[in-house]
Amino acid sequence: MTTTKIIFDTDPGIDDAMALLFAHYSPEIDVVGITTVLGNASLDTVTRNALHICERFDISAPVHKGAAAPLLIAADEPPAFVHGDDGLGNINPDTPSVQHESASAAQFIVDKVVQHPHEITLVAVGRLTNLALALRLNPEITQLVKEVVIMGGALGTNEHTGNVTPVAEANIYGDPHAADIVLTANWPLTLVGLDVTMTCVMQQAQMRHLRDSAGAAGQFIWDISRHYEDYYHRTRGVKGFPVHDSCAVAYVLAPELFQVRSGAIRVVTEGISIGQTIMVPGGRLFPPGDWHNVPESQGCVGVNADALLQLYESVLLKQ
Amino acid sequence: MTTTKIIFDTDPGIDDAMALLFAHYSPEIDVVGITTVLGNASLDTVTRNALHICERFDISAPVHKGAAAPLLIAADEPPAFVHGDDGLGNINPDTPSVQHESASAAQFIVDKVVQHPHEITLVAVGRLTNLALALRLNPEITQLVKEVVIMGGALGTNEHTGNVTPVAEANIYGDPHAADIVLTANWPLTLVGLDVTMTCVMQQAQMRHLRDSAGAAGQFIWDISRHYEDYYHRTRGVKGFPVHDSCAVAYVLAPELFQVRSGAIRVVTEGISIGQTIMVPGGRLFPPGDWHNVPESQGCVGVNADALLQLYESVLLKQ
Repeated sequence: MTTTKIIFDTDPGIDDAMALLFAHYSPEIDVVGITTVLGNASLDTVTRNALHICERFDISAPVHKGAAAPLLIAADEPPAFVHGDDGLGNINPDTPSVQHESASAAQFIVDKVVQHPHEITLVAVGRLTNLALALRLNPEITQLVKEVVIMGGALGTNEHTGNVTPVAEANIYGDPHAADIVLTANWPLTLVGLDVTMTCVMQQAQMRHLRDSAGAAGQFIWDISRHYEDYYHRTRGVKGFPVHDSCAVAYVLAPELFQVRSGAIRVVTEGISIGQTIMVPGGRLFPPGDWHNVPESQGCVGVNADALLQLYESVLLKQ
Repeated sequence: MTTTKIIFDTDPGIDDAMALLFAHYSPEIDVVGITTVLGNASLDTVTRNALHICERFDISAPVHKGAAAPLLIAADEPPAFVHGDDGLGNINPDTPSVQHESASAAQFIVDKVVQHPHEITLVAVGRLTNLALALRLNPEITQLVKEVVIMGGALGTNEHTGNVTPVAEANIYGDPHAADIVLTANWPLTLVGLDVTMTCVMQQAQMRHLRDSAGAAGQFIWDISRHYEDYYHRTRGVKGFPVHDSCAVAYVLAPELFQVRSGAIRVVTEGISIGQTIMVPGGRLFPPGDWHNVPESQGCVGVNADALLQLYESVLLKQ
């Protein structure tokens, strides 16, 4: 079996934790490193959570601490109403006995990509600050990565727009300048945004099945997701909850489950729509402007949600 | 028959001219005034064109000259490639013998609305500078108009986004600050944007029928629209052309032809997406922000295009 080496850039975060376990238990994926970024909780909290999950589930990947603040905007209050005060649905995880590595997340990304040219897939499921910093440390990584897969944004297809504002998704909104750097860099990038993740809703029945049959990992994802499920039920009327970050991992495992569209993508960095991701409609010509000479990326606009959720379940059950 | 008194705010403009004749020949509409604004050509040119059309087709409405420049942004070069150097498809209209009135467009709008409370419908098919200036002259007109119908913007439904940038429609892009003032004012407003106007494409066969059977007006709209038809064919691969501005008149005559959605609408006034119109998805809750306390307006998201084009034809044939 060929395995894909991934660096998992994350801010655990409930769906982050679920996605990390999904990647860890996928035989086709080798998690070669975990990088953390502020987001669903403070940098210290999400780094603690990443270390806790690694220790608890024997994940050997090194954890590198990343950005504690966005590039240019002020850091906002973490969304405890979504992810809990501890970022993990208020389970109050033990303090891990292991430590994060000394190299920064951005430096680790650069070093690893240079060390394994054309082998590393960056899977980023939080704010894109670490990836932007890595691009500034060494722009040549654009030519050396295998692929970049990002959970973030919303292209507005099928009426899927923002979740923190009417047009902005949380990861992109959290550092729009970094996101614009990352999305306009000339590397093979796929955006897995709300257009698809909002349709990948794990129902409570499936979660119960995982709790009862997927060992300690199944019990863990059940425990951390009670708060999250309640949030989606209260605010969006959704039964179950979308497995946002696991969609990015699923894209690495099974891209054939997704419908994608190609085009230049940019991020709004100011004004009322700050954090909006905009893809130029394919084949349309416009006067020269802000989208000119932006390399094309891929954006997911459709997904076989049932197959994706089944894939998640099968990986967790087979560990 | 009850007639609706409209003030037609316009920048003729080929589809503007077609819409003005549509309103003039509709027995259900009484055009009580025409106000001009820079846009499809310079203010002097579009004012000349409005006067020319009035003289040529015995339209008795007074013509009031409006804004020569947008509120805050710099005036750009008129789109001669769309509307011709003369704004009327290069037919080189005669210099009219009649003159525009001395009162400004904004002052006329205010005076007329105050004079006929709850009777005047503002139909604006160009940049919204005049309406924004009128709101600043007398904010109470929001409570005194009957209705405001605007051709402009794009809400992104059905993949209908911008025409001058990937997200911005020309009328809104041409004065985004004025548009944000007008769209967030507390008055009964309907946005007739690209979501519907791009589907109302008049085919050449119908234009030929109008040319041959609708008298001098039929011949005139044929003559002015050759340049416009060619533009759409070359740049968008459309056979025929969308009758953008006539859609706003059609909304006054037959709102039942349209599907509408309600929500707060704002306009982006800076950055890469300047000029984008954004409607908050109905029923969605977001943290307090830039859309908070914005009165709801209506946005058209669907139209019976065949019936609309048939309505245009029947009005022109019956004059």
